[in-house]
Amino acid sequence: MKIAILGTGAVGTTIGSKLIELGHEVMLGSRSNTNEKATEFVNKHDKNAYKGTFEEAATFGEIIFNCVKGEFSIAALKSAGSGINNKIIIDVSNPIDTSKGAPLSLIPELCNTNSLGEEIQRNFPNIKVVKTFNTMWSTLMMIPSMLQDGDHTNFICGNDEEAKNEVKNLLYEIGWKEKSIIDLGDITAARGTECLILLWLKIWGATIGTFSIKVVN
Amino acid sequence: MKIAILGTGAVGTTIGSKLIELGHEVMLGSRSNTNEKATEFVNKHDKNAYKGTFEEAATFGEIIFNCVKGEFSIAALKSAGSGINNKIIIDVSNPIDTSKGAPLSLIPELCNTNSLGEEIQRNFPNIKVVKTFNTMWSTLMMIPSMLQDGDHTNFICGNDEEAKNEVKNLLYEIGWKEKSIIDLGDITAARGTECLILLWLKIWGATIGTFSIKVVN
Repeated sequence: MKIAILGTGAVGTTIGSKLIELGHEVMLGSRSNTNEKATEFVNKHDKNAYKGTFEEAATFGEIIFNCVKGEFSIAALKSAGSGINNKIIIDVSNPIDTSKGAPLSLIPELCNTNSLGEEIQRNFPNIKVVKTFNTMWSTLMMIPSMLQDGDHTNFICGNDEEAKNEVKNLLYEIGWKEKSIIDLGDITAARGTECLILLWLKIWGATIGTFSIKVVN
Repeated sequence: MKIAILGTGAVGTTIGSKLIELGHEVMLGSRSNTNEKATEFVNKHDKNAYKGTFEEAATFGEIIFNCVKGEFSIAALKSAGSGINNKIIIDVSNPIDTSKGAPLSLIPELCNTNSLGEEIQRNFPNIKVVKTFNTMWSTLMMIPSMLQDGDHTNFICGNDEEAKNEVKNLLYEIGWKEKSIIDLGDITAARGTECLILLWLKIWGATIGTFSIKVVN
């Protein structure tokens, strides 16, 4: 499948590398098509790795990952123009307010009664936003087995059932087990998964090594 | 030990019954000392169960649980007057904004960059607020073994180390194992544990039966 990844940070390149390993073609999108990290990414892979502007990447991708920082996500998707039309956007980002100091908080307009996932869906009504992966480290997203043989939880939410099913299939391909995926319903559930970052950061400070969250019952 | 519980709802009475079973003396506090649920609680137990106003209960208790709804917690503690002075307040409550409809949200002034735990500590500087138990059902607080032999997580935070240690000892007495308790640091961590309710409510809607959260590593 042709997959676009908007954002060239650790999250975007980690996801991109895994998808190439699985046989997909990946284009990293960024503000400029001379982005150094994107060039490095392309050079690192023998084949199936491409780079371009946000618009070029979005046009290329049948599915699009949003791995741009929360505060810049809407702008990046706007730059992508008509390239995103009618496509699935897998939104991995959290609306962290980097303008304030520690302890980190969420962008006030995008928490509690709103979320980045909803804001994206509202700004671009003809795309299908599926929120997932935003509650864990990027390496864990792509190698779930690195903790407890994959026995921890990945949440998913979004308004379009078909889009969610397509994303779930991609999750299975990556190595996620069906029992480890909890479908929380529509995109308003992003309020819950995004604000988990506030707890996540405190657990990170209090524990040693890689961790994640598991729903036990 | 003499323990006060402010609040006569399911959370307060569940905690109270368990503490009596463990041999403690418990006084339930409410706005009026003719509260029906408190009377029922006292009648249900052969001994060690008492009732009174917020102030009477707080004066009675060596340790005080806040099990009053988030929106009324500060008022209840104000009613308790000097009864709370220099004592440990175990704050179990979440600042749910019940004035709005579904999906439930948090009181705007008490989330993201603030929390109920912090607000209580700020309003009553001479008490020692310890936040714990607020991420799970009340029965699970008191019978951790009802899920996975107790192998799930209870978070704790607060500014006073000695107070936290005293509360941890009470958690062990209830049946919590040391490895299941994660100390997140000072009371600002309450921002993370309180907003977990937004995710918790969505998990509740998406799954069947009792559940809780476990940090896996």
